[in-house]
Amino acid sequence: MKQSIGAKTLLFPAPVLMVGTYDRAGKPNLMNAAWGGICSSDPPCVTVSLRKARHSYDSILERKAFTVGIANESKMTEADYVGIASGRDTDKFAVAGLTPVRSGLVDAPYAEEFPLVLECRLLHTLEIGIHTQFIGEIVDVKADRDTLSEDGLPDILKIKPLVFDTAHRGYHSVGPLLGKAFSIGKKLI
Amino acid sequence: MKQSIGAKTLLFPAPVLMVGTYDRAGKPNLMNAAWGGICSSDPPCVTVSLRKARHSYDSILERKAFTVGIANESKMTEADYVGIASGRDTDKFAVAGLTPVRSGLVDAPYAEEFPLVLECRLLHTLEIGIHTQFIGEIVDVKADRDTLSEDGLPDILKIKPLVFDTAHRGYHSVGPLLGKAFSIGKKLI
Repeated sequence: MKQSIGAKTLLFPAPVLMVGTYDRAGKPNLMNAAWGGICSSDPPCVTVSLRKARHSYDSILERKAFTVGIANESKMTEADYVGIASGRDTDKFAVAGLTPVRSGLVDAPYAEEFPLVLECRLLHTLEIGIHTQFIGEIVDVKADRDTLSEDGLPDILKIKPLVFDTAHRGYHSVGPLLGKAFSIGKKLI
Repeated sequence: MKQSIGAKTLLFPAPVLMVGTYDRAGKPNLMNAAWGGICSSDPPCVTVSLRKARHSYDSILERKAFTVGIANESKMTEADYVGIASGRDTDKFAVAGLTPVRSGLVDAPYAEEFPLVLECRLLHTLEIGIHTQFIGEIVDVKADRDTLSEDGLPDILKIKPLVFDTAHRGYHSVGPLLGKAFSIGKKLI
Protein backbone atom coordinates (compact mmCIF):
# COMPACT_ATOMS: atom_id res chain seq x y z
CA MET A 1 0.00 0.00 0.00
CA LYS A 2 1.30 3.37 -1.02
CA GLN A 3 1.00 6.53 1.01
CA SER A 4 -0.53 9.73 -0.38
CA ILE A 5 1.93 12.62 -0.18
CA GLY A 6 -0.09 15.27 -2.02
CA ALA A 7 -0.12 16.94 -5.43
CA LYS A 8 3.55 17.87 -5.76
CA THR A 9 6.10 18.25 -8.55
CA LEU A 10 8.00 15.10 -7.67
CA LEU A 11 9.63 13.41 -10.65
CA PHE A 12 13.01 11.70 -10.71
CA PRO A 13 15.40 12.44 -12.30
CA ALA A 14 15.02 16.06 -13.44
CA PRO A 15 17.69 17.81 -15.54
CA VAL A 16 19.62 21.01 -14.79
CA LEU A 17 19.20 23.15 -17.90
CA MET A 18 21.14 26.32 -18.65
CA VAL A 19 18.77 28.47 -20.72
CA GLY A 20 20.68 31.08 -22.75
CA THR A 21 19.02 34.21 -24.19
CA TYR A 22 19.71 37.76 -25.38
CA ASP A 23 17.58 40.43 -23.80
CA ARG A 24 16.20 43.52 -25.56
CA ALA A 25 19.47 45.40 -24.99
CA GLY A 26 21.46 42.51 -26.45
CA LYS A 27 22.92 41.43 -23.11
CA PRO A 28 23.47 37.67 -22.87
CA ASN A 29 21.73 35.95 -19.98
CA LEU A 30 21.70 32.47 -18.55
CA MET A 31 19.21 30.87 -16.16
CA ASN A 32 18.74 27.50 -14.47
CA ALA A 33 15.60 25.47 -15.28
CA ALA A 34 14.71 22.01 -14.02
CA TRP A 35 11.24 21.94 -15.59
CA GLY A 36 11.98 20.67 -19.08
CA GLY A 37 13.11 17.82 -21.31
CA ILE A 38 12.82 16.35 -24.78
CA CYS A 39 9.24 16.39 -26.10
CA SER A 40 9.52 15.24 -29.73
CA SER A 41 11.88 13.16 -31.87
CA ASP A 42 11.02 14.50 -35.34
CA PRO A 43 11.45 17.42 -35.43
CA PRO A 44 13.74 17.12 -32.40
CA CYS A 45 12.27 19.43 -29.76
CA VAL A 46 12.93 20.40 -26.18
CA THR A 47 10.70 22.13 -23.62
CA VAL A 48 11.61 24.52 -20.84
CA SER A 49 9.03 26.04 -18.48
CA LEU A 50 9.63 29.50 -17.04
CA ARG A 51 7.66 31.87 -14.83
CA LYS A 52 6.61 35.11 -16.47
CA ALA A 53 8.57 37.13 -13.92
CA ARG A 54 11.84 35.73 -15.24
CA HIS A 55 14.03 38.08 -17.24
CA SER A 56 14.52 35.28 -19.80
CA TYR A 57 10.76 35.10 -20.44
CA ASP A 58 10.54 38.32 -22.48
CA SER A 59 13.85 37.53 -24.18
CA ILE A 60 12.62 34.22 -25.58
CA LEU A 61 9.41 35.79 -26.86
CA GLU A 62 11.25 38.68 -28.50
CA ARG A 63 14.12 36.73 -30.06
CA LYS A 64 12.13 33.54 -30.79
CA ALA A 65 15.18 31.59 -29.76
CA PHE A 66 17.06 30.12 -26.82
CA THR A 67 19.84 27.66 -26.09
CA VAL A 68 19.83 24.81 -23.58
CA GLY A 69 23.17 23.93 -22.02
CA ILE A 70 23.63 20.82 -19.90
CA ALA A 71 24.95 21.71 -16.44
CA ASN A 72 27.78 19.45 -15.35
CA GLU A 73 29.62 18.54 -12.16
CA SER A 74 32.64 20.81 -12.65
CA LYS A 75 30.41 23.88 -13.15
CA MET A 76 27.86 23.11 -10.42
CA THR A 77 28.49 26.35 -8.49
CA GLU A 78 28.07 28.47 -11.63
CA ALA A 79 24.96 26.52 -12.64
CA ASP A 80 23.39 27.12 -9.25
CA TYR A 81 24.38 30.80 -9.24
CA VAL A 82 22.52 31.54 -12.50
CA GLY A 83 19.41 30.11 -10.84
CA ILE A 84 19.69 32.55 -7.91
CA ALA A 85 20.68 35.92 -9.47
CA SER A 86 18.50 37.82 -11.96
CA GLY A 87 19.71 38.98 -15.37
CA ARG A 88 17.57 42.09 -14.95
CA ASP A 89 20.18 43.73 -12.75
CA THR A 90 23.24 41.50 -13.15
CA ASP A 91 25.56 40.33 -15.92
CA LYS A 92 25.50 36.70 -14.80
CA PHE A 93 28.02 35.57 -17.41
CA ALA A 94 30.56 38.11 -16.09
CA VAL A 95 29.97 37.37 -12.40
CA ALA A 96 30.18 33.60 -12.91
CA GLY A 97 33.22 33.86 -15.19
CA LEU A 98 31.35 32.20 -18.05
CA THR A 99 32.05 32.94 -21.73
CA PRO A 100 29.03 33.91 -23.87
CA VAL A 101 29.21 32.51 -27.41
CA ARG A 102 26.75 33.73 -30.06
CA SER A 103 24.98 30.85 -31.79
CA GLY A 104 25.51 30.94 -35.53
CA LEU A 105 22.08 29.39 -36.05
CA VAL A 106 19.65 31.08 -33.65
CA ASP A 107 19.48 34.50 -31.99
CA ALA A 108 20.74 33.36 -28.60
CA PRO A 109 24.01 32.81 -26.74
CA TYR A 110 25.37 29.86 -24.81
CA ALA A 111 28.09 29.42 -22.21
CA GLU A 112 31.21 27.84 -23.66
CA GLU A 113 32.03 26.20 -20.31
CA PHE A 114 29.13 23.72 -20.32
CA PRO A 115 29.99 20.58 -22.31
CA LEU A 116 26.82 20.21 -24.41
CA VAL A 117 24.40 22.78 -25.81
CA LEU A 118 21.17 22.60 -27.81
CA GLU A 119 20.46 25.54 -30.13
CA CYS A 120 16.71 26.11 -30.41
CA ARG A 121 14.24 28.20 -32.35
CA LEU A 122 10.94 28.86 -30.61
CA LEU A 123 8.21 26.64 -32.04
CA HIS A 124 5.32 26.83 -29.54
CA THR A 125 4.38 28.70 -26.38
CA LEU A 126 1.84 27.24 -23.97
CA GLU A 127 0.53 28.85 -20.79
CA ILE A 128 0.13 26.38 -17.90
CA GLY A 129 -0.75 28.02 -14.60
CA ILE A 130 2.11 30.14 -13.30
CA HIS A 131 4.54 28.70 -15.84
CA THR A 132 4.87 29.18 -19.56
CA GLN A 133 6.15 26.22 -21.49
CA PHE A 134 8.44 27.10 -24.38
CA ILE A 135 8.96 24.43 -27.00
CA GLY A 136 12.08 24.83 -29.06
CA GLU A 137 13.05 22.98 -32.19
CA ILE A 138 16.63 21.77 -31.77
CA VAL A 139 18.43 23.00 -34.90
CA ASP A 140 21.86 21.76 -33.81
CA VAL A 141 23.68 20.26 -30.85
CA LYS A 142 27.24 21.28 -30.07
CA ALA A 143 29.56 19.33 -27.81
CA ASP A 144 33.05 19.53 -26.40
CA ARG A 145 35.17 17.11 -28.43
CA ASP A 146 36.58 15.41 -25.35
CA THR A 147 33.08 14.33 -24.27
CA LEU A 148 32.36 12.39 -27.48
CA SER A 149 32.66 8.64 -27.77
CA GLU A 150 33.96 6.84 -30.87
CA ASP A 151 30.54 6.88 -32.54
CA GLY A 152 30.49 10.68 -32.39
CA LEU A 153 27.78 10.85 -29.72
CA PRO A 154 28.27 12.25 -26.21
CA ASP A 155 29.39 9.86 -23.48
CA ILE A 156 27.14 10.54 -20.47
CA LEU A 157 29.95 9.59 -18.09
CA LYS A 158 32.24 12.18 -19.73
CA ILE A 159 29.52 14.86 -19.82
CA LYS A 160 28.90 14.26 -16.08
CA PRO A 161 25.49 16.00 -16.15
CA LEU A 162 23.91 17.12 -12.89
CA VAL A 163 20.74 15.36 -11.73
CA PHE A 164 18.24 17.56 -9.88
CA ASP A 165 16.44 16.09 -6.89
CA THR A 166 12.94 17.61 -7.04
CA ALA A 167 12.16 16.58 -3.45
CA HIS A 168 15.17 17.90 -1.54
CA ARG A 169 16.55 20.32 -4.14
CA GLY A 170 20.02 18.83 -4.40
CA TYR A 171 22.36 18.13 -7.29
CA HIS A 172 23.47 14.53 -7.77
CA SER A 173 25.88 12.82 -10.14
CA VAL A 174 24.99 10.15 -12.69
CA GLY A 175 26.09 6.69 -11.59
CA PRO A 176 27.27 3.69 -13.62
CA LEU A 177 25.49 1.95 -16.48
CA LEU A 178 23.05 -0.67 -15.15
CA GLY A 179 21.62 -2.07 -18.41
CA LYS A 180 20.88 -1.38 -22.07
CA ALA A 181 17.47 -0.04 -23.03
CA PHE A 182 15.30 -1.91 -25.56
CA SER A 183 17.40 -4.93 -24.71
CA ILE A 184 17.31 -6.21 -21.12
CA GLY A 185 13.51 -6.35 -21.16
CA LYS A 186 13.55 -8.92 -23.96
CA LYS A 187 14.14 -11.70 -21.47
CA LEU A 188 10.47 -11.33 -20.44
CA ILE A 189 9.13 -11.82 -23.98
CA MET B 1 35.52 25.35 -29.63
CA LYS B 2 32.58 22.99 -29.71
CA GLN B 3 31.86 20.48 -32.42
CA SER B 4 28.52 20.33 -34.26
CA ILE B 5 26.92 16.91 -33.89
CA GLY B 6 23.59 17.62 -35.60
CA ALA B 7 19.98 18.23 -34.60
CA LYS B 8 19.44 15.33 -32.19
CA THR B 9 17.38 14.62 -29.07
CA LEU B 10 20.36 14.71 -26.72
CA LEU B 11 19.53 15.91 -23.22
CA PHE B 12 20.97 14.61 -19.97
CA PRO B 13 19.54 13.28 -17.75
CA ALA B 14 16.20 11.99 -19.07
CA PRO B 15 13.72 10.11 -16.85
CA VAL B 16 12.25 6.62 -17.29
CA LEU B 17 8.50 7.10 -16.93
CA MET B 18 5.96 4.30 -16.57
CA VAL B 19 2.78 5.63 -18.18
CA GLY B 20 -0.29 3.75 -16.93
CA THR B 21 -3.64 3.74 -18.77
CA TYR B 22 -6.87 1.80 -19.26
CA ASP B 23 -7.78 1.00 -22.84
CA ARG B 24 -11.29 0.98 -24.30
CA ALA B 25 -11.84 -2.59 -23.09
CA GLY B 26 -10.73 -1.65 -19.59
CA LYS B 27 -7.44 -3.53 -19.80
CA PRO B 28 -4.65 -1.86 -17.82
CA ASN B 29 -1.55 -0.99 -19.81
CA LEU B 30 1.89 0.37 -19.01
CA MET B 31 4.47 1.91 -21.33
CA ASN B 32 7.95 3.38 -21.03
CA ALA B 33 8.47 7.04 -21.95
CA ALA B 34 11.66 9.07 -21.70
CA TRP B 35 10.26 12.21 -23.33
CA GLY B 36 8.67 13.99 -20.41
CA GLY B 37 9.10 15.86 -17.17
CA ILE B 38 7.59 18.47 -14.89
CA CYS B 39 6.26 21.50 -16.80
CA SER B 40 4.49 23.61 -14.17
CA SER B 41 4.58 24.14 -10.39
CA ASP B 42 1.06 25.52 -9.81
CA PRO B 43 -0.96 23.63 -10.78
CA PRO B 44 1.63 20.84 -10.57
CA CYS B 45 1.82 19.34 -14.05
CA VAL B 46 3.82 16.72 -15.89
CA THR B 47 4.27 16.09 -19.62
CA VAL B 48 4.72 12.84 -21.51
CA SER B 49 5.15 12.68 -25.28
CA LEU B 50 3.85 9.63 -27.17
CA ARG B 51 3.66 8.62 -30.81
CA LYS B 52 0.15 8.24 -32.19
CA ALA B 53 0.79 4.59 -33.03
CA ARG B 54 1.10 3.73 -29.33
CA HIS B 55 -1.75 1.79 -27.76
CA SER B 56 -1.62 4.24 -24.82
CA TYR B 57 -2.32 7.20 -27.11
CA ASP B 58 -6.01 6.43 -27.65
CA SER B 59 -6.40 5.38 -24.02
CA ILE B 60 -5.26 8.75 -22.68
CA LEU B 61 -7.56 10.63 -25.05
CA GLU B 62 -10.56 8.47 -24.15
CA ARG B 63 -10.05 8.33 -20.40
CA LYS B 64 -8.61 11.85 -20.02
CA ALA B 65 -6.23 10.40 -17.46
CA PHE B 66 -2.92 8.62 -16.98
CA THR B 67 -0.46 7.80 -14.24
CA VAL B 68 3.31 8.29 -14.27
CA GLY B 69 5.36 5.81 -12.27
CA ILE B 70 9.06 6.31 -11.63
CA ALA B 71 11.08 3.34 -12.88
CA ASN B 72 13.67 2.20 -10.39
CA GLU B 73 16.78 0.00 -10.30
CA SER B 74 15.14 -3.12 -8.90
CA LYS B 75 12.47 -3.13 -11.64
CA MET B 76 14.74 -2.20 -14.56
CA THR B 77 13.97 -5.35 -16.57
CA GLU B 78 10.21 -4.84 -16.20
CA ALA B 79 10.52 -1.13 -17.04
CA ASP B 80 12.41 -1.96 -20.22
CA TYR B 81 9.99 -4.72 -21.17
CA VAL B 82 6.96 -2.40 -21.13
CA GLY B 83 8.83 -0.21 -23.64
CA ILE B 84 9.33 -3.12 -26.05
CA ALA B 85 5.99 -5.01 -26.03
CA SER B 86 2.67 -3.49 -27.16
CA GLY B 87 -0.47 -3.42 -25.03
CA ARG B 88 -2.51 -3.94 -28.20
CA ASP B 89 -1.78 -7.67 -28.22
CA THR B 90 -0.27 -8.30 -24.78
CA ASP B 91 -1.24 -7.97 -21.14
CA LYS B 92 2.05 -6.37 -20.13
CA PHE B 93 1.17 -6.25 -16.43
CA ALA B 94 0.63 -10.03 -16.43
CA VAL B 95 3.74 -10.88 -18.45
CA ALA B 96 5.97 -8.64 -16.33
CA GLY B 97 4.43 -9.83 -13.06
CA LEU B 98 3.32 -6.32 -12.16
CA THR B 99 0.22 -5.56 -10.08
CA PRO B 100 -2.27 -3.08 -11.57
CA VAL B 101 -3.86 -0.80 -8.99
CA ARG B 102 -6.83 1.39 -9.92
CA SER B 103 -6.28 5.02 -8.98
CA GLY B 104 -9.00 6.31 -6.70
CA LEU B 105 -8.64 9.78 -8.20
CA VAL B 106 -8.27 9.39 -11.97
CA ASP B 107 -9.44 6.81 -14.50
CA ALA B 108 -6.07 5.06 -14.85
CA PRO B 109 -4.06 2.29 -13.20
CA TYR B 110 -0.51 2.17 -11.90
CA ALA B 111 1.91 -0.61 -11.09
CA GLU B 112 2.24 -1.19 -7.36
CA GLU B 113 5.86 -2.34 -7.78
CA PHE B 114 7.30 1.07 -8.74
CA PRO B 115 8.08 3.20 -5.66
CA LEU B 116 6.52 6.50 -6.69
CA VAL B 117 3.53 7.33 -8.87
CA LEU B 118 1.90 10.55 -10.09
CA GLU B 119 -1.86 10.41 -10.73
CA CYS B 120 -2.80 12.78 -13.54
CA ARG B 121 -5.88 14.13 -15.25
CA LEU B 122 -5.38 15.25 -18.85
CA LEU B 123 -5.16 19.04 -19.07
CA HIS B 124 -3.75 19.76 -22.55
CA THR B 125 -2.82 17.91 -25.72
CA LEU B 126 -0.28 19.39 -28.13
CA GLU B 127 0.77 17.97 -31.49
CA ILE B 128 4.51 18.33 -32.15
CA GLY B 129 5.68 16.51 -35.27
CA ILE B 130 5.44 12.74 -34.84
CA HIS B 131 4.82 13.04 -31.12
CA THR B 132 1.82 14.21 -29.16
CA GLN B 133 2.57 15.90 -25.87
CA PHE B 134 0.10 15.12 -23.11
CA ILE B 135 0.08 17.51 -20.17
CA GLY B 136 -1.38 16.07 -17.01
CA GLU B 137 -2.29 17.86 -13.83
CA ILE B 138 -0.83 15.93 -10.92
CA VAL B 139 -3.77 15.41 -8.55
CA ASP B 140 -1.80 13.28 -6.09
CA VAL B 141 1.54 11.53 -5.63
CA LYS B 142 1.73 8.17 -3.92
CA ALA B 143 4.92 6.67 -2.54
CA ASP B 144 6.12 3.53 -0.85
CA ARG B 145 6.50 4.37 2.84
CA ASP B 146 10.04 2.98 3.02
CA THR B 147 11.23 5.53 0.42
CA LEU B 148 10.17 8.56 2.46
CA SER B 149 12.56 10.63 4.54
CA GLU B 150 11.67 12.18 7.90
CA ASP B 151 10.11 15.27 6.29
CA GLY B 152 7.62 13.06 4.44
CA LEU B 153 9.19 13.60 1.01
CA PRO B 154 10.80 10.87 -1.10
CA ASP B 155 14.52 10.24 -0.63
CA ILE B 156 16.02 10.04 -4.14
CA LEU B 157 18.66 7.57 -2.92
CA LYS B 158 15.90 5.28 -1.59
CA ILE B 159 13.75 5.65 -4.71
CA LYS B 160 16.81 4.72 -6.86
CA PRO B 161 15.25 6.10 -10.08
CA LEU B 162 16.69 5.05 -13.41
CA VAL B 163 18.44 7.70 -15.51
CA PHE B 164 18.02 7.33 -19.28
CA ASP B 165 21.03 8.05 -21.47
CA THR B 166 19.56 9.63 -24.62
CA ALA B 167 22.78 9.12 -26.58
CA HIS B 168 23.54 5.46 -25.99
CA ARG B 169 20.15 4.31 -24.73
CA GLY B 170 21.30 2.89 -21.42
CA TYR B 171 19.90 3.00 -17.91
CA HIS B 172 22.13 4.51 -15.23
CA SER B 173 21.81 4.90 -11.48
CA VAL B 174 21.72 8.19 -9.58
CA GLY B 175 24.99 8.92 -7.78
CA PRO B 176 25.69 10.74 -4.51
CA LEU B 177 24.63 14.26 -3.52
CA LEU B 178 27.16 16.82 -4.79
CA GLY B 179 25.63 20.06 -3.48
CA LYS B 180 22.45 21.83 -2.43
CA ALA B 181 20.53 23.85 -5.01
CA PHE B 182 19.76 27.55 -4.40
CA SER B 183 22.64 27.46 -1.95
CA ILE B 184 26.10 26.60 -3.30
CA GLY B 185 25.83 29.31 -5.98
CA LYS B 186 25.56 32.01 -3.31
CA LYS B 187 29.33 32.07 -2.94
CA LEU B 188 29.47 33.90 -6.29
CA ILE B 189 27.11 36.68 -5.19
